[in-house]
Amino acid sequence: MPSPARVTFSAGSAGNYQIDSMLTVTGEPLPAATRLHVHEGAWQPAPGAVWSLLGVSGHVRYVEHAEKQRLAGVTPALGRPEATRAALIPIRKSEAWWNLAQDERRAILESQSQHIALGLRYLPAIARRLSHSRELGEPFDFLTWFEYAPEHGALFDELLHALRLTEEWRYVEREVDVRLTRL
Amino acid sequence: MPSPARVTFSAGSAGNYQIDSMLTVTGEPLPAATRLHVHEGAWQPAPGAVWSLLGVSGHVRYVEHAEKQRLAGVTPALGRPEATRAALIPIRKSEAWWNLAQDERRAILESQSQHIALGLRYLPAIARRLSHSRELGEPFDFLTWFEYAPEHGALFDELLHALRLTEEWRYVEREVDVRLTRL
Repeated sequence: MPSPARVTFSAGSAGNYQIDSMLTVTGEPLPAATRLHVHEGAWQPAPGAVWSLLGVSGHVRYVEHAEKQRLAGVTPALGRPEATRAALIPIRKSEAWWNLAQDERRAILESQSQHIALGLRYLPAIARRLSHSRELGEPFDFLTWFEYAPEHGALFDELLHALRLTEEWRYVEREVDVRLTRL
Repeated sequence: MPSPARVTFSAGSAGNYQIDSMLTVTGEPLPAATRLHVHEGAWQPAPGAVWSLLGVSGHVRYVEHAEKQRLAGVTPALGRPEATRAALIPIRKSEAWWNLAQDERRAILESQSQHIALGLRYLPAIARRLSHSRELGEPFDFLTWFEYAPEHGALFDELLHALRLTEEWRYVEREVDVRLTRL
């Protein structure tokens, strides 16, 4: 019985990633910390963590068949040796977003904001994993995770900049951008 | 910060519903019990429960704008005094279902199976609440809950019969049908 994969991000003074910067894009900040520990498997906040965020990955929510195939062809695995930079960007959307019907959310996400098409343009340079938190009663709805080589840092910033200008991002009410280097 | 509502169904020898029958439709059964306790708010399995199932409700996953409006116009509230009968039907779908893209799942659910249209035909007689469990690592993906007056029992059976004949139901790998009377 394979279940959706669980992940715990714990920030504190220990962990397999060094926290290079924490930028509060929208809403409340997260407390400062120097290291991030990423734990896969059972939800397991690190003892003494300053903050911990739990997520679960799983099935796609908006991606359609043709997009899924295109993504599968170019999506790199996590953990590539050269991808020593990472970003954890937890996001919370507004009640207005969640009250929309499925077709309305899809229209904003893709027809108006080209979220999927935009992401595809930055593959395979940037590996990505989306975890869901909303159903767990967590402070964020999504925990987005990215891995890239140092020379792709500017490219990643460009992708974020484009996404933050979209119609979809008008529904983002909390976003923190945590930049990391793998130790 | 309103979060999706949580619910805990605990079966045992105490609770606000009498268990009239438990029918295993597909897959593994649930252990027998005589009462069901429904708890809303924090997830809180009743002490000594034979089994407990946790769920979380929230935004719609397939319903489109026009359907959402139609549903809002005819969906009755839970807890109507005359609706003394209830059913808890936990459902688990196969990995094949969850590996489909969003448009493929929507096509099976509505274009081929008319799940939403079918349900609309039985409103306002049958009140319904869908809770999600998959993201919580629970044994079922959904906990479906229905409330109806005794005279609508045959109507409810008809709805279930129609749903179980659909293309969508070929992806159901576990289903238990628990019938209840409010005490």
